[in-house]
Amino acid sequence: MNKEKISATIITIGDELLIGQVVDTNSAWIAQELNKIGLAVKQRWSVGDVREAIWQALDEAAKSSQIVLMTGGLGPTADDITKPLLCEYFGGKMVFDEKALAHVKYISEKVLKRPLLERNMKQAEVPDVCEVLHNSRGSAPGMLFKKNDCVFVSMPGVPHEMKGIMMEHVLPRIQQDFDLPTILHKTLVLFGIGESFVAERLVDFEAGLPTHIKLAYLPNYNLLRLRLSGTAKDAVALTTEMETHFAALQVLMKDHLVIDKDQNMQQIVFDLLQSQQKTMATAESCTGGYIAHLITSIAGSSQIYNGSVVAYAYDMKEDSLGVSHESLLTFGAVSEEVVRQMHKGLLATSKADYGIATTGIMGPGGATEDKPVGTVWVAVGDAQQVVAKKFHFRFDRLKNIELTAMNALNLLRELMVSNHSTKP
Amino acid sequence: MNKEKISATIITIGDELLIGQVVDTNSAWIAQELNKIGLAVKQRWSVGDVREAIWQALDEAAKSSQIVLMTGGLGPTADDITKPLLCEYFGGKMVFDEKALAHVKYISEKVLKRPLLERNMKQAEVPDVCEVLHNSRGSAPGMLFKKNDCVFVSMPGVPHEMKGIMMEHVLPRIQQDFDLPTILHKTLVLFGIGESFVAERLVDFEAGLPTHIKLAYLPNYNLLRLRLSGTAKDAVALTTEMETHFAALQVLMKDHLVIDKDQNMQQIVFDLLQSQQKTMATAESCTGGYIAHLITSIAGSSQIYNGSVVAYAYDMKEDSLGVSHESLLTFGAVSEEVVRQMHKGLLATSKADYGIATTGIMGPGGATEDKPVGTVWVAVGDAQQVVAKKFHFRFDRLKNIELTAMNALNLLRELMVSNHSTKP
Repeated sequence: MNKEKISATIITIGDELLIGQVVDTNSAWIAQELNKIGLAVKQRWSVGDVREAIWQALDEAAKSSQIVLMTGGLGPTADDITKPLLCEYFGGKMVFDEKALAHVKYISEKVLKRPLLERNMKQAEVPDVCEVLHNSRGSAPGMLFKKNDCVFVSMPGVPHEMKGIMMEHVLPRIQQDFDLPTILHKTLVLFGIGESFVAERLVDFEAGLPTHIKLAYLPNYNLLRLRLSGTAKDAVALTTEMETHFAALQVLMKDHLVIDKDQNMQQIVFDLLQSQQKTMATAESCTGGYIAHLITSIAGSSQIYNGSVVAYAYDMKEDSLGVSHESLLTFGAVSEEVVRQMHKGLLATSKADYGIATTGIMGPGGATEDKPVGTVWVAVGDAQQVVAKKFHFRFDRLKNIELTAMNALNLLRELMVSNHSTKP
Repeated sequence: MNKEKISATIITIGDELLIGQVVDTNSAWIAQELNKIGLAVKQRWSVGDVREAIWQALDEAAKSSQIVLMTGGLGPTADDITKPLLCEYFGGKMVFDEKALAHVKYISEKVLKRPLLERNMKQAEVPDVCEVLHNSRGSAPGMLFKKNDCVFVSMPGVPHEMKGIMMEHVLPRIQQDFDLPTILHKTLVLFGIGESFVAERLVDFEAGLPTHIKLAYLPNYNLLRLRLSGTAKDAVALTTEMETHFAALQVLMKDHLVIDKDQNMQQIVFDLLQSQQKTMATAESCTGGYIAHLITSIAGSSQIYNGSVVAYAYDMKEDSLGVSHESLLTFGAVSEEVVRQMHKGLLATSKADYGIATTGIMGPGGATEDKPVGTVWVAVGDAQQVVAKKFHFRFDRLKNIELTAMNALNLLRELMVSNHSTKP
C-alpha cells in the first residue's frame, strides 16, 4: 500500500447504522472538513457494536491511512463496547480523568440539573494510553491514540458534540502534525440540463485537464453541480491553474449557469434579495411549508422573509389568500387561474416585494383524469410582473415537494436576475 | 471468518461520498430493507471512484459476506469507472444488452424527449458474465454477478432508481435463494427522559434478556427510542419471546412512553387526529414552516391539516393572526402573551379544531438580555383548552428549530391523549 500520500479513514460505529435506523451524517461532515485542510479521505467504514468487526476495521484502516477518525460507541449505556475495546487494542488500562470527571459533574448538576449517576461518571473513565480531548458540548470526551505512526481519534456519535471536538482539537492538531498538500474544490451549479448533454459538451475540456485536476458530475434531479478538484503541494500555482480551468468551464456552460460556487438554491435567492434590499413571501399549497422552511433555516432570514401562508384547505386559500370560490370550483385548485390569485393575495397579505405561490398534486393520491400526480403550477413575481409555469414531476411525494421548491426558487431567481440586469 | 451466518456488505462508490458533498442515504435504506427480510448487514463501506479501492473493497467484502450490494459509479459521465472494473473483476467482456438498449432509447425519446446520445447508449453495455436487472425508473441497468458462492449486485446511485431495482429484483431474489433466519425489531418511543436514567431503570431487564435478543438505545435529543432486536430460526417462537420482553419493557417505561412502534412524532399526531376525526393548523414564527412541512410530507395529510400561517414579520403576526400591536411592543414577539394570541388567531383563520403556535429565538442572532438564543414559547390546544409552555434550547439554529417542532407536536399529542382519555 502506498504510504506516501497522507489519507484518512472514517469509521462510524453502531448497530443502528447497520439496520438503517439512522442516516450517517457525521461521515459527510467530517469528510468535508478534512478536505478543506487538504486531507483526502480514502474510505468510510460503518461497523456494528461488535468486537471483531471494530477490531478488524482498525487493523485494516491503519494499513491504508495515517489518520483514523472514529465516531460512535461512547454513550453511557450498555450497548457501547468501543471504549474497553480501544483500551485493549492500544494496550492500556482504564483510569479516571480528573478534568473529564469535573466536566461530567458540571453538566449533570449545572446544565441538566439532574442527579449524577455512576453511569455518567464512567464517561470520564479513559484508557491511560490516550490523550483526552475535552468535549465542551457533552460528557463523553474524545480520545487520541498513536500506534505505528498512525493517529487514531475516537469521538462520541452525537453530531453536535463530535463537531465541537473536531473543530477545537482534531482539525488544528492534524494541520500542525502533518505536512498536507493543498486540495482545492471549485463547484459550478447548473439548472435544467442533463448530465449526458453536459458531458458531450465537455469532452474536449475534460481531455485537456491535467492529471492532478479532476472533474466530477453531481446530479441531483434538475440541478447539476460540476466540481473541479485539484491537488498539489504548491498552493499558489494550483490556485492559478484551477481558476483558469474553472473560468473556461463557466464559459462552456454559460447558458445553464446558476452560480459559480457550491451554494444551494435558497441561499442564492436569499443573497439576491439581500443585495437588492427586497423581501419575499410564499403561498404554499403543495409544498406545504417546505419553501418557508428552506428560507427560514438561513440565519438572518427575517431580514428578507415576511412569511408564508400554507393554504392546504380550500377555506384557507379563500380566506387567507383571497382566492375566489368560483375559480376553485371551475378550474380546480391546481390551475393557472388559482396560482395567480394565490400570488396576488400573498403580496397583499404579506406586504412582501416578491412572492412565490405553489399548487399541485404531490401523490400518491389526489390525481384526476386530466391532472396526474406530479402536476404543479407555480407563480413567481412582484407587483409589476408575474410568471406562471406548469410542471410535471414523476417521483414520489417527498421528491415532488423538493423538486417543486427548487424549481419555484429557480423561477424567482431567473426573474430577479433578469429584472435587475435590464434596469438602468 | 465465520461463514455460517449469512450477512451482507453494502459498498457505496463515488468521490462525492469522500469529500462529503452528499450524505449517503442509500446505505440506510438498503440496510432497513435487508433487515426486514432477515438479512443482517455486517458492514458498510464507501470508497471513491478509484480502481484499487473498489477492487479491494470487493475482495474484502466477499471474505466476510455472502451478499455484496453496490450502489453508484454507473452514470453516463466520465467519472464512472465501476462498470469496466466489474467486467474485469468477474472476467467478462462488454456486450450490448438488447432489452436495456431498447429501454434507454425509450427513456430518451419518449420520457425525456431528448435526442439519444452515444453516451446514453453505452449505459446499455454490460459485462457478458452478469445477469441484467431491469431498471424501470432510469437508464442504467442493475447487474448481478456470482463468484465463489458470493452474490454481487451493482446498482445506480440515484436513490429512486436503486430502490426500484432493489424492490423488483434484489429483495425477492435474496429471499428465494438464501435460507434466512427471522430478524425482529420492536421499538419503543420515549420522550423527556435521559438515556442514563433509562439505563439505570433497565439494569435488571437487560441482564434478563437471552443472548439472541439485544436492547439498543437510540437517543435523538428529547426523544429516545429503545429497540429490541431478536434473531432466530423459529419465527413463531421468536415472536412470542419478543412480545413478552417488549411488554415488560413497556411496563417499566410507562411514565415516559409515547408509542410502542418505530414511528415519528408527526405520524403519531396525524394518526391521533385521524382517529378522532379532527383537523389541525399551525401558526409558526420560529419554526418557519418546518412543522407544516413535517405534517404535509405525510400522504393524505390534507384530511387532517388545514394549513399554516408562517408569520415571520411583525406585520404578518398582526394582519394574518390578529396579534395586537401593543402586545408585540410591550411583551415582545417571544412571550406567552403573543403565543397565546397567535394560537387564538390561528384557530379563527384556519377553522381547524387544534392549533400549534410557536415563537422563539433560534439563533445565532436575535438574543436580548432577558431572552437568550433558544428561548421559545409554544401554545397548543383547541377552542376549549390551551396550554402554553416556555422552553430553553441550547443548540444551533437548525437543531433548535427541530427541537421546537418535536416538543410542540409532543405537547399537542399529550393534550389530545389526555382530552380523549378523560372523555366519557
